Amino acid sequence: MHHGIGFIQDLAVVMALAGVVTVLFHRLKQPVVLGYIAAGVIIGPYTPPFQLIHDEQTIQTLGELGVVFLMFSLGLEFSLRKLFKVGATAIVAALSEIVLMLWIGYEIGSAFGWSSMDSLFLGAILAISSTTIIVKALSELGLKRESFAQLVFGILIVEDILAIAMLVLLSGIAQTGELSAGVAVVTLGKLLLFMTVSLVVGILVVPRALNYVARAKSDEMLLVSVLGFCFGFCLLVVKLDYSMALGAFLIGAIMAESRHLHRIEHLIAPLRDAFSAIFFVTIGLMLNPTVLLDYAWPIAVITVAVIVGKIVSCGLGTFLAGKDGRTAMRVGMTVSQIGEFSFIIASLGLTLKVTSAFLYPIAVAVSALTTLFTPYLIRAADPLTQRLGRAMPPTLANVFSLYGQWLRSLSTGSGEPTLFSMTRRIILQIAVNLALVAAIFLIVSYSAPYTSTVLAHWVASEPMQRVVLWSIALVLSLPFLVAVYRKTKSLALLLAEVSVQPATAGRFTSAIRYAISDLVPVVSMVGVFLLVAALSGSILPPTGLLTVVLVCAALLLALVWRWCVKIHAAMQIALRETFEEQPDP
Amino acid sequence: MHHGIGFIQDLAVVMALAGVVTVLFHRLKQPVVLGYIAAGVIIGPYTPPFQLIHDEQTIQTLGELGVVFLMFSLGLEFSLRKLFKVGATAIVAALSEIVLMLWIGYEIGSAFGWSSMDSLFLGAILAISSTTIIVKALSELGLKRESFAQLVFGILIVEDILAIAMLVLLSGIAQTGELSAGVAVVTLGKLLLFMTVSLVVGILVVPRALNYVARAKSDEMLLVSVLGFCFGFCLLVVKLDYSMALGAFLIGAIMAESRHLHRIEHLIAPLRDAFSAIFFVTIGLMLNPTVLLDYAWPIAVITVAVIVGKIVSCGLGTFLAGKDGRTAMRVGMTVSQIGEFSFIIASLGLTLKVTSAFLYPIAVAVSALTTLFTPYLIRAADPLTQRLGRAMPPTLANVFSLYGQWLRSLSTGSGEPTLFSMTRRIILQIAVNLALVAAIFLIVSYSAPYTSTVLAHWVASEPMQRVVLWSIALVLSLPFLVAVYRKTKSLALLLAEVSVQPATAGRFTSAIRYAISDLVPVVSMVGVFLLVAALSGSILPPTGLLTVVLVCAALLLALVWRWCVKIHAAMQIALRETFEEQPDP
Repeated sequence: MHHGIGFIQDLAVVMALAGVVTVLFHRLKQPVVLGYIAAGVIIGPYTPPFQLIHDEQTIQTLGELGVVFLMFSLGLEFSLRKLFKVGATAIVAALSEIVLMLWIGYEIGSAFGWSSMDSLFLGAILAISSTTIIVKALSELGLKRESFAQLVFGILIVEDILAIAMLVLLSGIAQTGELSAGVAVVTLGKLLLFMTVSLVVGILVVPRALNYVARAKSDEMLLVSVLGFCFGFCLLVVKLDYSMALGAFLIGAIMAESRHLHRIEHLIAPLRDAFSAIFFVTIGLMLNPTVLLDYAWPIAVITVAVIVGKIVSCGLGTFLAGKDGRTAMRVGMTVSQIGEFSFIIASLGLTLKVTSAFLYPIAVAVSALTTLFTPYLIRAADPLTQRLGRAMPPTLANVFSLYGQWLRSLSTGSGEPTLFSMTRRIILQIAVNLALVAAIFLIVSYSAPYTSTVLAHWVASEPMQRVVLWSIALVLSLPFLVAVYRKTKSLALLLAEVSVQPATAGRFTSAIRYAISDLVPVVSMVGVFLLVAALSGSILPPTGLLTVVLVCAALLLALVWRWCVKIHAAMQIALRETFEEQPDP
Repeated sequence: MHHGIGFIQDLAVVMALAGVVTVLFHRLKQPVVLGYIAAGVIIGPYTPPFQLIHDEQTIQTLGELGVVFLMFSLGLEFSLRKLFKVGATAIVAALSEIVLMLWIGYEIGSAFGWSSMDSLFLGAILAISSTTIIVKALSELGLKRESFAQLVFGILIVEDILAIAMLVLLSGIAQTGELSAGVAVVTLGKLLLFMTVSLVVGILVVPRALNYVARAKSDEMLLVSVLGFCFGFCLLVVKLDYSMALGAFLIGAIMAESRHLHRIEHLIAPLRDAFSAIFFVTIGLMLNPTVLLDYAWPIAVITVAVIVGKIVSCGLGTFLAGKDGRTAMRVGMTVSQIGEFSFIIASLGLTLKVTSAFLYPIAVAVSALTTLFTPYLIRAADPLTQRLGRAMPPTLANVFSLYGQWLRSLSTGSGEPTLFSMTRRIILQIAVNLALVAAIFLIVSYSAPYTSTVLAHWVASEPMQRVVLWSIALVLSLPFLVAVYRKTKSLALLLAEVSVQPATAGRFTSAIRYAISDLVPVVSMVGVFLLVAALSGSILPPTGLLTVVLVCAALLLALVWRWCVKIHAAMQIALRETFEEQPDP
């Protein structure tokens, strides 16, 4: 019981000060997050009276648990369903914000003469707004249910995904020193593949497993199972060289589709609150106040850039996507701060040792200042809109209002499925099935060094081992290959129907249509085979044996075709059911 | 983000396995705690396939957090109010159980030829039943609301307090090697003083502070404040050389008097469940299965001794305290296991390096076996009682039933306050006030080395520094001294009234009564002065200056007497209010 005293003392100092600080900052009507950071500075190594923390490493570890729980909670609040709803507007606004802020950050860094890596990380730090701060500010101002707030949440969801892509890309750039287009495409492709497969498999497995656990009505069991999934998945993700933050977010998004979402949120909230408090305190611990004084000028410039840049970029994006000026202004002024993601990105730069030491305190200072302004900016949105409206020249106002009318006239659909929406749906299904096939072959390839040593007991020759492994992968992916074939066929039919008109093709119409609808799937399957062969290079059998395997597979397929279709349909239905099920209140 | 991978991997392994195990053990209808321990053994260093834990130290630290949260939760469920209700029966039963099991444990250890320290620790390990296991077993069997269950909870509360006293005594014995009666009295006296002062001051301060925090209706704020108080108090307790377990339990008991008890329980439950799972897994980690095989014989003997010993000792205690045979049997069979406290005591022995390595695995094995039997024993209580009743010789049954009738005839009071109950109340109040006075002087004495360096700026001479410090302590304790004086006076009046009867004292009756009621308080205050002088030896001014201080204090007292009385009354009322307030549902 006695060897943990140093640690318990640290925890006591952190929690006791955090407790005082929450109450104090709540009285001052300031965000508690700022209070935590201030508490961290006070007990940190850079400020008098003396060193209050003994075992900084353990506190940092607990802070990392805070990041896991924070990202997991963000994932729980994320929902594919919600994302589909806000759709286009949120994507346009988020993209315009991130691209512009990345550019502004990079330019500011370059203007101050910082290294290009520092400038790039500064851009990334400024790009993403803080979900935590915004959710708290909106609910404290009582605006959480307004329609612009829903749009803001949509933007935040898109930003979260893009931020994760950015984390992965930044790690790549930091390690290789530069970013070629090819590497970026492969990196993002791998990320997309991983996310798709995780989401599909996760949504098929995890909510069902949790339903089973939840039947026991024991909060302890549910909590321990949720944590087991959460940390288990984080471990898998870390082993694949992605960040824990990504893992926690993804498994949260998967659990968001569970019927027991609200119970899970309830159980995780205390863990998140306790450890995110520690996380924010550790941010303060790393903050050297003298650095802030040395860099007062950049901090001021960047703070102004964040506020103005985000209002303009996100507001403009919202407006261009078809919302009215008032909504655009409110959205822009709500997202005008940086927060937890900026800290994660800044500490990524420090951990990878590619950024200068001053970047982290600058990020914290800018986050603190912009967070401080957030509630005032949100409240100032409406008066400012009115003032701008009055000050605007009439011609300009006219142009704006015409643009809005034109855009709205475009989007008045009849609600019937259009050709575009139908093909989009089929293409999405093909992509998901291809992703699953690719994942199966990749997993079998990666596991080959381990499995082949086991296989060696039964199969001596190395080519035969490959045959066995490749056949296993092929058999496992048969249902998805069949699905790809069938979806491609129906896509080809649809396209043939539309593109080959009797007016032009005359009496060959139906012949050409048949040709297209038969040819396209076959050609596509050849393409799929080439893709699979490329992905599974390390376990691809020699050509002779490969032909034998393929012939056997074709024979097998003839036998189990209907069974494959059935299996796939069952999975698709299960997925759709999980999606459409509303969480219990 | 990347330097915590080893740690996150450990946590992932622990939580994922714990998750699987909860579900499995729930299906097998076995206590989940056993599953956690089994999971610990599997991933531990002593079992194949390989070492799954990298950073055992950090996991152990998290397990210690589990102990803190577990003891804090026990404290929250503990309640002085509940303790007053079950009162005498619980105390008799718990005392009889602890004394007998201590003796049985010591004798078994000696019989196996173990060292006397091992035998003593074995006794302590067997003495305390497991609150966690019992609460879970009773609620799973649907017996939680029955009257024997209420009595069991009372016994568990008394056991918790006695266990804490035992922890303190064992630490003392372990460090000095033996226990003299004098040391035991001083140790227990100090513990009692510390607990009394903590409870009184804590109950005056903490629930009020939490009420203030809770007004903000933010779960995060309340949780962080609760954790701040919890770890802050644990730190204080550790600094005073008591165990963290004691600190967590006491602050829990203090918060149990808060109006927001249920909200706090709700917020702490996930933290407790998550970290106590880790704690139980760490117990398994420390378990070497081969040791279990080597010590199979002692384990079997001790397991039987625990089950039979506890049924007999606790059952008999309950019966002797006036309950019927059936209740006694049910109580005895419910408490017949050992659990979390045994682990804490066993690891105390290991940490202090006074017990042999084999004691810990034996404790764990016996706990696992007895836990396994608990639900069956509870269910077997009624059939066994009937069988015993039938098998018992009629004369013996007659004696038992006569004893019960006699005891019940004793306790049929009229409900009016008796002389005994009135004096008991006054003596309790005097004791509490004396404890507070003693605590004030002790705190000022202990802080003298630090404060006198500060004082040196204003007061140069060392005797004058003592005068200042001692005067501060005296002024601070004035309200309590006045209270002691007034309570002693009323006690003296009461005793004079009763003991001096006109029949014996004749015409001197009222004179003698006056003499007693005036003399006793003065004599007592001299005694109090001697006590205070002894406690504050290090800051006691020289005799000449002391006389001056006392005269000044007497003059001051004449001025502020009424104010002191008022202050004390206000505190007393505040304390009573906090006690009598029911927690919000």
